[in-house]
Amino acid sequence: MQLKLSKMITKPDFQGEFTASILAAAASPDIISFAGGLPNPVSFPIPEMEAATKKVLETNGVIALQYSSTAGWPALRQWIAKRYETMGVYGVKPEDIIVTNGSQQALAMVGAAMLDAGDEIVVENPTYLVALQSFHVYDPKVLPVTMNKDGIDCDELEATLKAHPGVKFAYVIPNFQNPTGLSYSKAVRDRAAEIFKAAGVLVLEDNPYRELRFAGTAAESFGAALGEQCCMLGTFSKIVTPGMRIGWICVRNAELREKLLNFKATADLHTNIFSQMILAQYLADNDVDAHIEKTKVLYKQKAEFMMDCMRKYLPEGVEFTPTEGGMFLWVTLPEGVTAVDLYRKGLEKGVAICPGDPFYEYERGVRTFRMNYSNSTDEAIEKGVRILGEACRELM
Amino acid sequence: MQLKLSKMITKPDFQGEFTASILAAAASPDIISFAGGLPNPVSFPIPEMEAATKKVLETNGVIALQYSSTAGWPALRQWIAKRYETMGVYGVKPEDIIVTNGSQQALAMVGAAMLDAGDEIVVENPTYLVALQSFHVYDPKVLPVTMNKDGIDCDELEATLKAHPGVKFAYVIPNFQNPTGLSYSKAVRDRAAEIFKAAGVLVLEDNPYRELRFAGTAAESFGAALGEQCCMLGTFSKIVTPGMRIGWICVRNAELREKLLNFKATADLHTNIFSQMILAQYLADNDVDAHIEKTKVLYKQKAEFMMDCMRKYLPEGVEFTPTEGGMFLWVTLPEGVTAVDLYRKGLEKGVAICPGDPFYEYERGVRTFRMNYSNSTDEAIEKGVRILGEACRELM
Repeated sequence: MQLKLSKMITKPDFQGEFTASILAAAASPDIISFAGGLPNPVSFPIPEMEAATKKVLETNGVIALQYSSTAGWPALRQWIAKRYETMGVYGVKPEDIIVTNGSQQALAMVGAAMLDAGDEIVVENPTYLVALQSFHVYDPKVLPVTMNKDGIDCDELEATLKAHPGVKFAYVIPNFQNPTGLSYSKAVRDRAAEIFKAAGVLVLEDNPYRELRFAGTAAESFGAALGEQCCMLGTFSKIVTPGMRIGWICVRNAELREKLLNFKATADLHTNIFSQMILAQYLADNDVDAHIEKTKVLYKQKAEFMMDCMRKYLPEGVEFTPTEGGMFLWVTLPEGVTAVDLYRKGLEKGVAICPGDPFYEYERGVRTFRMNYSNSTDEAIEKGVRILGEACRELM
Repeated sequence: MQLKLSKMITKPDFQGEFTASILAAAASPDIISFAGGLPNPVSFPIPEMEAATKKVLETNGVIALQYSSTAGWPALRQWIAKRYETMGVYGVKPEDIIVTNGSQQALAMVGAAMLDAGDEIVVENPTYLVALQSFHVYDPKVLPVTMNKDGIDCDELEATLKAHPGVKFAYVIPNFQNPTGLSYSKAVRDRAAEIFKAAGVLVLEDNPYRELRFAGTAAESFGAALGEQCCMLGTFSKIVTPGMRIGWICVRNAELREKLLNFKATADLHTNIFSQMILAQYLADNDVDAHIEKTKVLYKQKAEFMMDCMRKYLPEGVEFTPTEGGMFLWVTLPEGVTAVDLYRKGLEKGVAICPGDPFYEYERGVRTFRMNYSNSTDEAIEKGVRILGEACRELM
């Protein structure tokens, strides 16, 4: 047999290959790894899920195990719609929500529904690498716009959208962005919303970390200012469990919503209804805010401890951006040292980081890297950062 | 905002639109519906799932709720690999299995990995309509080959593959095909395997109903004769639960497997691990064959009862193909009456069928339709078939 693969699947995939090699190396049990992005298991409500499962199976077992609708379980869609009020977005209806296999599937769905080869999209630079990968499937021209400490660079955004009036959508992560951990200030959010409105460009707002703010105040969602011009992605992965793969997309434009539902029907018919019902039961029977609070207390402590260690162990010239939430810190090496150099040197010494390269569409050999703090012990954080400091000194 | 959708999503979707209208009409509680394809809830092991969930959460709760691997849960992949021995396919390794969101996702993954616009694929005529839809995403040229009472028409298959040497894959459902309920005989299976081998064409074998044989003997899987030239799709939807959306694809070609895994990683990272672990626990702690036996006893009774009713109530000239398993019967109306005519007339009288049209790539206004027997009471079957008989008489 001669295997005849598609052009799409045989294209080079820098993001995929780079991170596969990083994560494979980081998976060794002898390595202290800050390379991944796992939530801390403190955020998993295990006995509560057991109680919710029992209740769902005993009261609605047949529905939980039967085929179901592509849009998702009504009670869960209702909870999600209501939750938007806590983000300053009012009037979201349960019908606006499509439950997806993690918000990752929502990214893939929007790519499919919007992109033809050569179409232009705007992303933050750097941005979430698997979002880049799922858009790359459709071969778009990616226009990255610089991410500053207070959010996307508005001058650059405005100029980009003026120079490229055909842009299909802009993908943004306004809170504790992956990889940088940075958030949009209110001023940047307001100006960016005006720019998007003037350009009439669809905004795809990804917000997996928003609920994990342990300091400062969040700017409102773009959905508040932009209405149906903004699709809002969300997920239970960082606040309840990633294992169930339950995310969503809020789409208030009826035409786009219908197309996304059609595509999802051919992709997998519907999202696991058993887990959707268990999650909805869990949310009905428990105080999820109290639960999130526990996670935030832990992450705040971990973040502050890692920042303290960085101030203590990293040599002068290595900078990082303090964060107020989420799961990541973003570090910049001085001129002359690349993150891949540090990754290699660190690995020799038993510590893994995630070099910034795959988070950029074009730049390679960058000096930035991502550090995850949510899933390491304090001992590992202190030891790991100390070793990284040594590695930096050897390279500088 | 001007919404700028992709060409792919704005293409006409005959299959999707046709079945959406059918299923919407059939969903009314006043309608006796044979139009859908739901398993009978007798196949849902509710208390056993509750016990399995408790065990998984109490022993491995953190793993069940954390991120997991794209390929799937090892214990589940191991069970699936071993299961192939009962189908006469030996040597399948757990590493060959990718766990998917229902076998539907596996169809979408193969489409993505194999198809560029204009590429040729072979399907049975008629075939599973959502498979057609998921291939249509990639705009292939579909070459349908007649489905006879004993399986695919081998002469036509051979001629088609000779005339079209570039065919990317052939999609076949050798047992209780959806929609026809027909199976390949051993002779047809053997000859088709030789034809596929000679042509070097990848075979995509879908087998959701194979375990539901209540009479006769199954021909071996194409995987036995064709080795890595055959990808085998499977699902737990018809034997345990569709609600968990757990299917798989067995891919023994390492290059294709790697590409499918890469694509799945961008599509949704991985399949719900909570449900994968519960299902694996259920399979370890229960006799699934005894469970399937219960389902088969029920389906045999339902199928025979529906066939009896058809013999009794349908007028002469209306033919159906007796089945030995699965969930469907396939009916052919006499010349001059279309299935859509009967669908409309039936609906007026309170009975829904699924006209054959969307199962064909090209034919419209066909005289064939699909009847589902797995999910109706005997009373509904008798009343519904009697009414359909009247409707036929009025049209003939």
